[in-house]
Amino acid sequence: MKEGDHVVPIFNGECGDCIYCKSSKKTNLCGKFRVNPFKSVMDSDGKCRFRNKDGIPIYHFLNTSTFSDYTVVDYACLVKIDPHAPLDKMTLLSCGVSTGLGAAWNTADVQTGETVAVFGLGAVGLAVVEGARTRGASKIIGVDINPEKRIKGEAIGITDFINPKEIDVPVHEKIREMTEGGVHYSFECAGNMEVLREAFLCTHDGWGMAIVLGIHPTPRLLSLHPMELFDGRRIVASVFGDFKGKSQLPLFAKQCMAGVVKLDEFITHRLPFEKINEAIQLLLDGKSLRCLLHL
Amino acid sequence: MKEGDHVVPIFNGECGDCIYCKSSKKTNLCGKFRVNPFKSVMDSDGKCRFRNKDGIPIYHFLNTSTFSDYTVVDYACLVKIDPHAPLDKMTLLSCGVSTGLGAAWNTADVQTGETVAVFGLGAVGLAVVEGARTRGASKIIGVDINPEKRIKGEAIGITDFINPKEIDVPVHEKIREMTEGGVHYSFECAGNMEVLREAFLCTHDGWGMAIVLGIHPTPRLLSLHPMELFDGRRIVASVFGDFKGKSQLPLFAKQCMAGVVKLDEFITHRLPFEKINEAIQLLLDGKSLRCLLHL
Repeated sequence: MKEGDHVVPIFNGECGDCIYCKSSKKTNLCGKFRVNPFKSVMDSDGKCRFRNKDGIPIYHFLNTSTFSDYTVVDYACLVKIDPHAPLDKMTLLSCGVSTGLGAAWNTADVQTGETVAVFGLGAVGLAVVEGARTRGASKIIGVDINPEKRIKGEAIGITDFINPKEIDVPVHEKIREMTEGGVHYSFECAGNMEVLREAFLCTHDGWGMAIVLGIHPTPRLLSLHPMELFDGRRIVASVFGDFKGKSQLPLFAKQCMAGVVKLDEFITHRLPFEKINEAIQLLLDGKSLRCLLHL
Repeated sequence: MKEGDHVVPIFNGECGDCIYCKSSKKTNLCGKFRVNPFKSVMDSDGKCRFRNKDGIPIYHFLNTSTFSDYTVVDYACLVKIDPHAPLDKMTLLSCGVSTGLGAAWNTADVQTGETVAVFGLGAVGLAVVEGARTRGASKIIGVDINPEKRIKGEAIGITDFINPKEIDVPVHEKIREMTEGGVHYSFECAGNMEVLREAFLCTHDGWGMAIVLGIHPTPRLLSLHPMELFDGRRIVASVFGDFKGKSQLPLFAKQCMAGVVKLDEFITHRLPFEKINEAIQLLLDGKSLRCLLHL
């Protein structure tokens, strides 16, 4: 890697040397760069590289600290990509789009003709939709309590939309009815336990798989009885879409450049960097998907 | 099928016609013969075939009702096997041995050199051990609070034994220490929630899989937080070892005849049929694995 390279920073590093990175098993965990949201430091010396104006150390955020003009990032957390790739769009590969699309491609491995349900149509959920669409899913059911999400969902690829507030039966019953027994894969992108249970139950018994992408901040345990697993439904989680970042993102970037994956719909706003708080408020209000911040 | 055929009755039928039986997905569920422990009837007419001496109908038990000299069983619940296979041992394929061994072969698909932990060394757990041994697992850790299980376990193939009552740390910590971070697969054959949690946590993060075989009769929900799934451990259940009974058991029977799978160790007692209650007491007391009942 050298000065001038075009790179995408990733929170889920890939050192290439640990048992996880070297394992033939399908995992994108890295022994050195496990996700540490708030107190990560440089692996090389265990120290951070930032200080506030009073000289107090500021930890790295999600291994990358990219809410800044400049940053210091470990080699394992930087992906070198094609210099012709549009840098403004490539930033989407750092998290949300890779996470959602990768969950459909890598974790679920959706095949042509299979059916999916996506709970929560934020950037991650819509990226799942994009992943399922590019794989040729025959039915992509978007689920969201915000009725405006239908429009964006349809622009990206949902074939059906369910607003849980507008139906009289549990969502899983509605989905089972629409899909002759349930979807092959469901994706929980809401971080809500009731939603997760619906996502589990809306999959087809025998082979359905619910994939957890949402962050569940409460101490509430899984709302599942062990005997429910005997119906053959599976539940797994997906981190960063099971992409091994440094190994696999360069090809993913090329697939975006070739138009296999479409990124335009994910960029809803563009604001100067000093308006970062405004950008985050747009996100919290559900008005934006991703806002590009520029200098 | 004709009179005189040698057959093995199976509770987990395979009709061959339903969406599950015809699915290319790996499931051994059958739409017609889902496990119904206590109130199953003949599929053909929805009636049962037994009555007590007062003429009151007696439902079929587990689709087979084999605690009797004669029974009536649907075609989907009968597996025709090689007439030279020893019938007394073949009865083991009807449930426990297929369930445990199949969990290692089909559900986990244990590969040579991989490591496993088995919680509960009854007939099912020991059959998991046999399945892991025949696949060339490099380490097979048996876990049981009954110290006498070590002897039987070693006869079948455990390489290590842990009695949770004899160690000062949680079992999962001990197993992680013994296996450089955890086993590839763990099998819960105890039907106990605390044991299931230990089984989940003793697997290696990134790729470990806990397989539930135990029956959990309490309403207690899974003792897992959704974020724990983000460490890459998986939890699934296995019914009848994921064997499609009619399709796969004939070959399994041949593998037993060829000595690939050894069944002798599973037969600990032989009693006449009228002593069935004594046989069940031996099982409840942990003194027997499987007792052959003969006429």
